[in-house]
Amino acid sequence: MEEMLVFGHKSPDTDTICSSIVMADFQKKLGKNVKAVRLGEPNKETKFALNYFEFEAPELIEKVEEGQEVILVDHNEFSQSADGIENAKIRMVVDHHRICDFLTAEPLYYRAEPVGCTNTILLKMYKEYGFEIDKKIAGIMLSAIISDTLLLKSPTKTVEDEKAVEELAKIAEVNYEEYGLEMLKAGTDLSDYSAEELIGLDCKKCELKDKKAKVAQVNTADISEMMKRKSEFEAAISKDIEENNLDLFVFAITDIINSNSQAIVLGKETTIFEKGFNTKLEDNTAFLPGVVSRKKQILPVLQENA
Amino acid sequence: MEEMLVFGHKSPDTDTICSSIVMADFQKKLGKNVKAVRLGEPNKETKFALNYFEFEAPELIEKVEEGQEVILVDHNEFSQSADGIENAKIRMVVDHHRICDFLTAEPLYYRAEPVGCTNTILLKMYKEYGFEIDKKIAGIMLSAIISDTLLLKSPTKTVEDEKAVEELAKIAEVNYEEYGLEMLKAGTDLSDYSAEELIGLDCKKCELKDKKAKVAQVNTADISEMMKRKSEFEAAISKDIEENNLDLFVFAITDIINSNSQAIVLGKETTIFEKGFNTKLEDNTAFLPGVVSRKKQILPVLQENA
Repeated sequence: MEEMLVFGHKSPDTDTICSSIVMADFQKKLGKNVKAVRLGEPNKETKFALNYFEFEAPELIEKVEEGQEVILVDHNEFSQSADGIENAKIRMVVDHHRICDFLTAEPLYYRAEPVGCTNTILLKMYKEYGFEIDKKIAGIMLSAIISDTLLLKSPTKTVEDEKAVEELAKIAEVNYEEYGLEMLKAGTDLSDYSAEELIGLDCKKCELKDKKAKVAQVNTADISEMMKRKSEFEAAISKDIEENNLDLFVFAITDIINSNSQAIVLGKETTIFEKGFNTKLEDNTAFLPGVVSRKKQILPVLQENA
Repeated sequence: MEEMLVFGHKSPDTDTICSSIVMADFQKKLGKNVKAVRLGEPNKETKFALNYFEFEAPELIEKVEEGQEVILVDHNEFSQSADGIENAKIRMVVDHHRICDFLTAEPLYYRAEPVGCTNTILLKMYKEYGFEIDKKIAGIMLSAIISDTLLLKSPTKTVEDEKAVEELAKIAEVNYEEYGLEMLKAGTDLSDYSAEELIGLDCKKCELKDKKAKVAQVNTADISEMMKRKSEFEAAISKDIEENNLDLFVFAITDIINSNSQAIVLGKETTIFEKGFNTKLEDNTAFLPGVVSRKKQILPVLQENA
């Protein structure tokens, strides 16, 4: 039996890394030979979760070979996927994002649901097949949901995510509120990242009509501390805009304690942002009260106002 | 509660019409207000099935309004969907085809599986939710699977389709082999269709690299009878090629009794067909032994040789 690969998106976050490991475990229970791999360095939050529940990070791959059978988790857009994905055989996708920049030559298993986290869907799949969930696997599933929903405070959170968190916390035998805050805070220690790294850690390319944009996001426990490095960020963003011919770059610095964001916005199409959020940028920046979700609160606003 | 619409593809076949009715029934059980509609005239096979199990055909619609909430069944490609689909809100898709020419602005429920028929997936969904299936609903679900798998003889058929047929036949209280043959034969009475209608009854547009193609298919119990109208078909196909700037048109006349097809092939890119099937067209036609499935045996061959 040929080995199938499972991976999440580039610039991996906790859901992407954990879903890959969990999907490999799920497929093993089905008798399939599936190996979890990753497309980039795990961030500090993810490392905290893996370490806590005693997992190694999956192996890094640079690209997939032609004809390689793959499973995608937590993404579907080819621009966020492995290099060479166009010529791989995509057998399965489990995801919770919109569908865009995706196509296959053959029918496949595709399961998407509009919930807060891929692992909420994976939990359903274990239950539908009657598979038991190991304590450590439950721990990383829980970590992923806490990460994607900012400890159930993000507007992307659904009732199903809440139930999943409670159920998984029991199996993992942790107090999810205590553990979750500790994990999220571990992810906000950004002091040893360069500005270039920070704008690339969790960055999504998107097309706004005929405009090219990127929306990057970092979590912090202290916006003002991060804003001390504003001119560094501006320089890194300007460089990225020039090198990639971008029309707009939005960098959201999200306060996970108080659920707000400070955006640094550059590019020749900043009016899309200003129109969308009904605000004026001052010195390339604006405060966005209550905004924590790129998917629900930033991307749709930019799409609609492009 | 606003009414949501559910529909299958243009040039509807039995699976498309029946999945719409079945999905509306499923959503009703979930307490949702969903109405089945159709994008074209049901064919004779579908009419036979609807009549047998005492259903009316869903209402015809021409297009969907901006912002209308919709569920797509048995298709995902916008080119096969309702006019205006780009500006509708797609909330759910249940399908068994490859994903292509599809995108959404928001996350959604998307469920695809590589099985022979949409209704095989719908049956799973009823069972997952513990919903009972009404005898008449089971009858049209069964009809759809028989139609899509040519009474379980098509290579698109999977073990899950077989099991579904047996299970649904019991609930519907029919002998599926007898009923199925009767239904398929009802669909092969094509005498009162014009050549234009026949090449459009079940016709899929597709892009072969940068080439525009259409692959149409009709079922028959007697290829030679159909081939008496060959020059009529050629004229209709040539007209379609000219009007739509097509590079290739493949019209497959499929013998559902003996599981073969006769193809009539026109356009300036007929070499794609000849290369793919390792054959020479004689007088614009070629016999394809064992070929009955457009999805598994024709489209991939054309894709690979374009």
